[in-house]
Amino acid sequence: MLSKKTSLGIKNGSAIRAMFVEGKLMAEQYGAENVYDFSLGNPATPAPEKLKEVLIDKINSEDPLVLHGYMNNAGFPEVRKTLAEDLNRRFGTDFDEGDLIMTVGAAGGLNITLKAILDPKDEVVVFSPYFGEYRNYVENFDGVIVETKPDLETFQPDLSDFESKLTAKTKAVIINTPNNPTGVIYSPDTMEKIGTILRAAQERFGTQILLISDEPYRELRYDGKEPDFLTKYYENTIVGYSFSKSLSLPGERIGYVAVPKAVAGHDELVAGISLCNRILGFVNAPSLIQLAVAECVQEKTDVSFYDRNRKTLYEGLAELGFSAILPEGAFYLWMKSPYPDEKKFVEMAKKHRLLLVPGSTFGCSGYVRIAYCVSHDMILRSMDSFRELAKEVGCYA
Amino acid sequence: MLSKKTSLGIKNGSAIRAMFVEGKLMAEQYGAENVYDFSLGNPATPAPEKLKEVLIDKINSEDPLVLHGYMNNAGFPEVRKTLAEDLNRRFGTDFDEGDLIMTVGAAGGLNITLKAILDPKDEVVVFSPYFGEYRNYVENFDGVIVETKPDLETFQPDLSDFESKLTAKTKAVIINTPNNPTGVIYSPDTMEKIGTILRAAQERFGTQILLISDEPYRELRYDGKEPDFLTKYYENTIVGYSFSKSLSLPGERIGYVAVPKAVAGHDELVAGISLCNRILGFVNAPSLIQLAVAECVQEKTDVSFYDRNRKTLYEGLAELGFSAILPEGAFYLWMKSPYPDEKKFVEMAKKHRLLLVPGSTFGCSGYVRIAYCVSHDMILRSMDSFRELAKEVGCYA
Repeated sequence: MLSKKTSLGIKNGSAIRAMFVEGKLMAEQYGAENVYDFSLGNPATPAPEKLKEVLIDKINSEDPLVLHGYMNNAGFPEVRKTLAEDLNRRFGTDFDEGDLIMTVGAAGGLNITLKAILDPKDEVVVFSPYFGEYRNYVENFDGVIVETKPDLETFQPDLSDFESKLTAKTKAVIINTPNNPTGVIYSPDTMEKIGTILRAAQERFGTQILLISDEPYRELRYDGKEPDFLTKYYENTIVGYSFSKSLSLPGERIGYVAVPKAVAGHDELVAGISLCNRILGFVNAPSLIQLAVAECVQEKTDVSFYDRNRKTLYEGLAELGFSAILPEGAFYLWMKSPYPDEKKFVEMAKKHRLLLVPGSTFGCSGYVRIAYCVSHDMILRSMDSFRELAKEVGCYA
Repeated sequence: MLSKKTSLGIKNGSAIRAMFVEGKLMAEQYGAENVYDFSLGNPATPAPEKLKEVLIDKINSEDPLVLHGYMNNAGFPEVRKTLAEDLNRRFGTDFDEGDLIMTVGAAGGLNITLKAILDPKDEVVVFSPYFGEYRNYVENFDGVIVETKPDLETFQPDLSDFESKLTAKTKAVIINTPNNPTGVIYSPDTMEKIGTILRAAQERFGTQILLISDEPYRELRYDGKEPDFLTKYYENTIVGYSFSKSLSLPGERIGYVAVPKAVAGHDELVAGISLCNRILGFVNAPSLIQLAVAECVQEKTDVSFYDRNRKTLYEGLAELGFSAILPEGAFYLWMKSPYPDEKKFVEMAKKHRLLLVPGSTFGCSGYVRIAYCVSHDMILRSMDSFRELAKEVGCYA
C-alpha cells in the first residue's frame, strides 16, 4: 500500500524516535529509574506557571468561537503583532504582523517554507552535524541536501568547505545555532563570514539564496551569553522559531516564521509560506495555544536547571576519560565515540542502560549526542553506568 | 524566491479563503451586520461546556511535562484507545489503539495519508463536486486528481462514470459524505455499489485501491438520520476524522485517521502514516487538545441549530425562485446559479453584500455553495439581499 519513499523511510526509521520507543520498553523491563534515556530533546523543566494562568483565563473569558475558531492561515493578527513587537524590543528589528506566520512548531514552519521555495533538484545546504530531519524536510519537496563539513576542533562550520558547496542550484541554507546536536553557538565572526560568502555567491550566480535560521534553542545559552538575532548578518535571512524549548511546550506544536522586510521578494514569500501552511494541511497553528504564547513572551525557561546538568555531565564524563565539546547552548552534549563506528559504542552503552544517539543520525559519524534535558538526579545516577562503559571501552582504568 | 508550484498557487488562490479575507474587509466597510458572509465552513455553535471543564481540569491537575510534552508520533496511546473504544461502541467496529493515528485536523490526516501511499503519477479519484483542497493535497505528492461526474438530479455520484475512471494507476479514492459542498449523504445503495466497483477494479488490475473516507461532517445529519460508518462497505477503507465540526474546534487542528485491521498491509500503512506525520513536520497532534477531546467523545454539537438555518434558508430561497438541493447533512446549501458561469452570479451577489462560493472551486460549475453555519439572525437579515439578487437575475418578479 505504501509509496516507495515511505517504504524506504520506514526501513531507515528515525534513530532518535526508535530509541524513544526502545527506552519506554527498557523502562518497563528494568524499571524506569534504572534506564538512562538521553535520546530525546524533550524539555525537562515544566511550562511556566504564567502559561497555566493565561490558558485558564483565556478558556474562562474568551468567546469559544474565537478561542477555538479559524483565523487567517498566518495566524491571529494580534498574536503576530505582539510577537513582532517583542522581537523588535529585544533585537532592534522592525517586524510587524505582516512579517510573521504562526506555524505548527518549527518543524511545520520549516516544511511550509521549503515547500514555498523549492523546485525539484534545488539544493539546500546544511552544516554537519545537523538535525537529521532536515534531510526529510528537504526531500519532501524533491530538494537535494548538500552537507558541509565542520571544523572538528571547534565544531564551527568549515567555511571554505561551505563556500565550495554553493552552486547556481543553491536555493537555501539551513543554520541552527545554538546547535543540535553539538551545543555549539556559531560565533559572530562565523556569521559575518557566512554572510559575506552568501552575498558573493548570490553575485556570482545571479541568484537569491535564503538563509533559514532554525532557532528552537535561541534562549538556551550558558555563561551569561545573550541571544543573538541572525538577520543582521545577511539580508536574505528568515527565522524559524518554536516555543517547544523556551516554554517547554514540545507537544503543542507552536512556533512562527519571521520574514524581515529586507528579504528579497518579501511579500511573495510571506504569501507563499501562508499558502503552503494551508495546502500542506496545517491550515493554521493551533488557536488556543497561539493566543496563550503571545501573553508569555516575557517568560523564560529555567536555564540554570540545564546548566547544572551540563556541568555535572561534562565534568563527570571528562573524569571518566571521555572527550566532549563543552556546550555553549541548547541541552545536548556532543561526545567523541572511542570507535570510528559510533553505532558499536551506542550498542555497548545500551547494555549499561544508557541511551545515546549515534552521530551518523546528524551526518557526522564518530560521535554521540547526549540530551541532558533530564532530571539532575538521573545524571547523577547514570554515572555508574558511564563508569562501567568507560571501563569496557578502556578509556578509564 | 518562490517555487514554480507556489507561484502558480498564489495566482490561483483559494476562492474560499480569499472570500474570508474579503468578507472581513467588507465588514469594515459596511459594518459587520450588513455583510452576509456565507463563504466559510466555520462552526457557529460554541464548543461544548464540557470541553471547557475538561481543559481547565487537565491544566490544573496534569503534570505539564505530560500535558504539553512529546508523545509517540501517532498520539497518546490512552487517547487512541478511548477513541477506538468509542467507535467500537457506536459502530460495532473492532479498532484498538494501534489502528488510530491522531492528526493535526482532517487536513493533516489526509496529507500524511496521501504522502504515505502516493508515488508520482498515481491517481486519486474524487467525486465532483468535491472540497477543492483535495486537489492541492494530491498534487503535494505529485499524484494526479481524477474527477468523476455527479448525477445532476441527486448529486449522488454517477457510478458508471466512476467505474470508467478507475485504472491500474488508481491508488486511492476520496469520499466525503455528508458532502461538502452539496450537503448530500451518499446512500447505502451508492456505498454498496462503490464497494462492488472497487473490488472488481482491484481484481481487474491486480492492485489495492484505498478508499479514504473524509468524515468531518459525520455527525451533522438531519431528519433523524443516524451516522453511517463506511468501513463496512469495502475492506480497504480508512477513515479521516476531525473534531472541527463535531466539537466546534476548527482552529485547534485535531483529528485522527483510523485504519481497520482488514485493510491490506494494515501494519505498514499505520507505520507509514505515523512516519509521515513526523517527517512532514506535524510531529504529533497538539497534546493538550488531544487529551481533552478524548474526554468529550459523548458530546454532540447542536444539530438543531444548523437544522433551523437549513430550513429557513432552503425555504426562503425556494420562495424567491432559486433552485437548491435540500441538504441531508453538513451545513452547506448547494444552489443552482441562474447562469452557467456561476462566477458572474457570485460577483452580482457580492454587490448585495452576499458572499457565496463558486461551484468551480469544487470542480462543478453552474452552482454556488452557501455555508449556513452562521447565526439564524444573519440568515433572516440576508433575505432582503437575496430578494434583490433574485430580482436582478430575474428569477423573482
